[in-house]
Amino acid sequence: MSNVRVIALGGVGEIGKNCTVVEQDNDLVVVDCGLTFPDVEHPGVDFIVPDFTYLLENKDRVRGIVITHAHEDHIGGLPFLLKQLNVPLYVNPLSHAIIKHKLDERLPGVQVDYRVFNFGDKLALGSIEVEPIRITHSIPDAACLAVKTVHGYIVFTGDFKIDFTPIDAKPSNLKRLGEIGEEGVVLLLSDSTNIEREGWGPSERMISEGFEKAMRDAKGRVLVTAFASNIHRMQQAIVVAHKLKRKVAVVGRSMERNLDIAQKLGLIKIPSGVLIDLDRARETPHEQMVILLTGSQGETLSALTQMSRSEYGRLQVLEGDTLIYSARPIPGNEGPIWKVLNRMFDLGCDVIYDSELHIHVSGHGYQEELKMMINLTQPFYVAPVHGESRHQHLYAKMAMDMGYPKHRVFMLKQGVPLALDETKAFEDGKVATGEIMVDNSGAIGVPAEIIKERVIAGTAGTITVIVTIDTSQNEIVGDPVVHTRGFFAGPTVINDITEQVVDLLAAMKPKELENRKGVERALIEGAKRFLGRRFQARPILDVIFVEI
Amino acid sequence: MSNVRVIALGGVGEIGKNCTVVEQDNDLVVVDCGLTFPDVEHPGVDFIVPDFTYLLENKDRVRGIVITHAHEDHIGGLPFLLKQLNVPLYVNPLSHAIIKHKLDERLPGVQVDYRVFNFGDKLALGSIEVEPIRITHSIPDAACLAVKTVHGYIVFTGDFKIDFTPIDAKPSNLKRLGEIGEEGVVLLLSDSTNIEREGWGPSERMISEGFEKAMRDAKGRVLVTAFASNIHRMQQAIVVAHKLKRKVAVVGRSMERNLDIAQKLGLIKIPSGVLIDLDRARETPHEQMVILLTGSQGETLSALTQMSRSEYGRLQVLEGDTLIYSARPIPGNEGPIWKVLNRMFDLGCDVIYDSELHIHVSGHGYQEELKMMINLTQPFYVAPVHGESRHQHLYAKMAMDMGYPKHRVFMLKQGVPLALDETKAFEDGKVATGEIMVDNSGAIGVPAEIIKERVIAGTAGTITVIVTIDTSQNEIVGDPVVHTRGFFAGPTVINDITEQVVDLLAAMKPKELENRKGVERALIEGAKRFLGRRFQARPILDVIFVEI
Repeated sequence: MSNVRVIALGGVGEIGKNCTVVEQDNDLVVVDCGLTFPDVEHPGVDFIVPDFTYLLENKDRVRGIVITHAHEDHIGGLPFLLKQLNVPLYVNPLSHAIIKHKLDERLPGVQVDYRVFNFGDKLALGSIEVEPIRITHSIPDAACLAVKTVHGYIVFTGDFKIDFTPIDAKPSNLKRLGEIGEEGVVLLLSDSTNIEREGWGPSERMISEGFEKAMRDAKGRVLVTAFASNIHRMQQAIVVAHKLKRKVAVVGRSMERNLDIAQKLGLIKIPSGVLIDLDRARETPHEQMVILLTGSQGETLSALTQMSRSEYGRLQVLEGDTLIYSARPIPGNEGPIWKVLNRMFDLGCDVIYDSELHIHVSGHGYQEELKMMINLTQPFYVAPVHGESRHQHLYAKMAMDMGYPKHRVFMLKQGVPLALDETKAFEDGKVATGEIMVDNSGAIGVPAEIIKERVIAGTAGTITVIVTIDTSQNEIVGDPVVHTRGFFAGPTVINDITEQVVDLLAAMKPKELENRKGVERALIEGAKRFLGRRFQARPILDVIFVEI
Repeated sequence: MSNVRVIALGGVGEIGKNCTVVEQDNDLVVVDCGLTFPDVEHPGVDFIVPDFTYLLENKDRVRGIVITHAHEDHIGGLPFLLKQLNVPLYVNPLSHAIIKHKLDERLPGVQVDYRVFNFGDKLALGSIEVEPIRITHSIPDAACLAVKTVHGYIVFTGDFKIDFTPIDAKPSNLKRLGEIGEEGVVLLLSDSTNIEREGWGPSERMISEGFEKAMRDAKGRVLVTAFASNIHRMQQAIVVAHKLKRKVAVVGRSMERNLDIAQKLGLIKIPSGVLIDLDRARETPHEQMVILLTGSQGETLSALTQMSRSEYGRLQVLEGDTLIYSARPIPGNEGPIWKVLNRMFDLGCDVIYDSELHIHVSGHGYQEELKMMINLTQPFYVAPVHGESRHQHLYAKMAMDMGYPKHRVFMLKQGVPLALDETKAFEDGKVATGEIMVDNSGAIGVPAEIIKERVIAGTAGTITVIVTIDTSQNEIVGDPVVHTRGFFAGPTVINDITEQVVDLLAAMKPKELENRKGVERALIEGAKRFLGRRFQARPILDVIFVEI
């Protein structure tokens, strides 16, 4: 009997670019297709998508892509994959609306084959059957996927928490997860993001209390910033505002759009007359206003960041405003976020953040919720995903505490297929994998070499020496030009380097000048020696020959 | 009667480069002289020191520098200030040892006029009397300073917590603070770093429990990383290790040095036979070893970081090791630190971090401790320092909750003197102030322009176009050379730009070529237009003329 294989093209050993392949005979199913936002080690990179080579090499076998939920780390790679591989895209109605908006813009010519599913459907992708099961997360209608293979179910938890009191009163379908467990789960791929947190996470519903307390205490306007996809968060802000007789205006493109989508799909209920536009908001007494706005991650162009700089034409921060920071900094964004909050304080705004009030809760389950998922699905093998190494290791430890022997816990590695046969699971070779960097220029596939140049140029600068040679005589013409950018080592150093270069060149015979590589090497080594003697500077050094 | 002025040259609106001036008539006293470690907005900068212009302009009036404690954010600016201004440096014995080591290395020719003080001393700096008072912090023998002026005491809390059970059994001298309060404090400059935390912070002594539990549970070696200046932390690790019959080895230059200093000054008590060197450590059974090591901030060259990369020759991480991360990430260092911890997990090491066990406590007091300081010293005015804007604002709010009216709470601004006369306090003009950046080349005073170039070159790269002109004819010679570094926009773009430049130049008349600025502008605008049409790239664009 054939092997079944699970291959993570991303999303393991990292939080981001989730993309996993399930393979059975001739059929290949892709679960999610996300992007990662880069850290400081990727300067100038807008985002990173998985290397899709394996899928492109197996084009004819790919039966479709199934999306658990429409967060960027699960859908942001779609424009890049679908441009090269037109296969059916299985989405629920909310994901459909969000993704369609994005792809219509990004892939204008491409006819995407959307297959909209509902919970309870059983999707046939070749010989593989995929069943979406409702699970709670920080976006409505998120799905677990039970993927039926010849060896039993492979369950993708997707991103999840176990929220018994979700805002839409649609809790996770634990019963169905239990049934799937009963039928036989061979492998559970579980979210492990919040493995560091003990106990149970708080329900999204706690936010209403926090919002109500904060809005009651606020003397003036209340600004609320949150993730734009957190529709239930917006719902709660609106309901509480209405209760306290405040109107609500929404500022920020992505938030306005998501609210619009959610309204059309009936995922959010807005009491009539509460929502007003910004022009009317400006005329409304301050104590009667709530403003929802984007920018919870300190994004340079967001409404909040611009307001904090007093550079947002449509809305100014006023003394007596209160900002509710209803989010958490995504690791790496702390710096810009604190700067925004500091500036808001300086403008006379009260800022509520990291507060005893519940003004933010995580969308990912804590330890006990992760254990509950194992308990319900009774998997034979478990493999933590959606975590950095330490999350995966801590999850593995937890599973072992629950009685799993070591050989039934897998630390999935990117591009290393986990094969399942009738009696065992094992690592099965390696497929192409990696990071495809999308540059801020829009170009795809920044080479590592360019990143390295940026790191050096961006910290130590560049020195370019231009030497003009008359090729007919093999003679230096005029003085060399030394041009620097971002390089700093005191006022006289450029002159000193130029002299150094002039002396080195003067000492060379025409014969030596013929060997350009040799001259280049001599000049670079000379400059390096000189810089090394006096400074610790290690700029990029280039010698360019102009031949006339 | 003359005014007294307090001028922060750093350390307000930021956590770092603490340096404050107290002025009375013809006398000027400097309290602390620190550095700041730069964030991502200062690429290639090693650290930042205050602009000392005001002190240099008032050289003859400076009576001395008084150091509260020897952390880098309080002493790191000394090599830069003392090089230009040789005034007495008032230090306690521990600060003396630490600073002397640093200055002997950094200022080899300079004879520093050390004045070693003890608690209880009253230091006369001209007409200003400074009394150091013992306070607890994460380094032994830290001092509050009561600075006696004609208008009453100005109290600098320095960095502090109120630890009733310090490891050295030398608690804060609260009685003396109360007496000073009774005598009359006109202004309290208080640490506000932990204003976000409610209640009382835990005592340093809690660590022993955490260490003991962790070391008991550990099957193999225990590695402990902590701040190298936290001598009491080392003390506790050593005592617990000894109790559990483990030996201790110390790895990392700064930690070895500080341990040595602390031993010589009798600040740490090491049971004999516990400390062994690394060679013996390698031969000691794993379950009998504890290793203290540097690198708690993920510093590239530290022992821990190199071990996590399996690149540290002297010591390898082994399966079964346990790492106790007895520190917290300084904001901005999170990324590198998580990478180190992830790699440690991957090497089979158990890592204890951010744990329920007390394995780290802060050296800065929480809200109730900050209130206690106000209660004891009964200042007329309060001004939060050692915090970013948000900390200062939250501290101001706390003071107002304690009954302070708004006009008695000051938000000190860098370089804006706070003047005190007999009846009031007021902002009194502005003195020179700013950030002096020390480059990774070692050069001092990186201009903002260079930083800007690095930011652009480091994210979008550089394009340099070299045009050779025969000045006798005003004629272009040969083809222009287009040279790029760190720039990426797909494979053909360099050729395309070159063509663009060739076409633009070909269309120019000799007369136009005379105007180099005009040619430069035309080429740059042409390249920008071209790049803007196809990409969002915004590299540095340079045109260089080689004249022959």
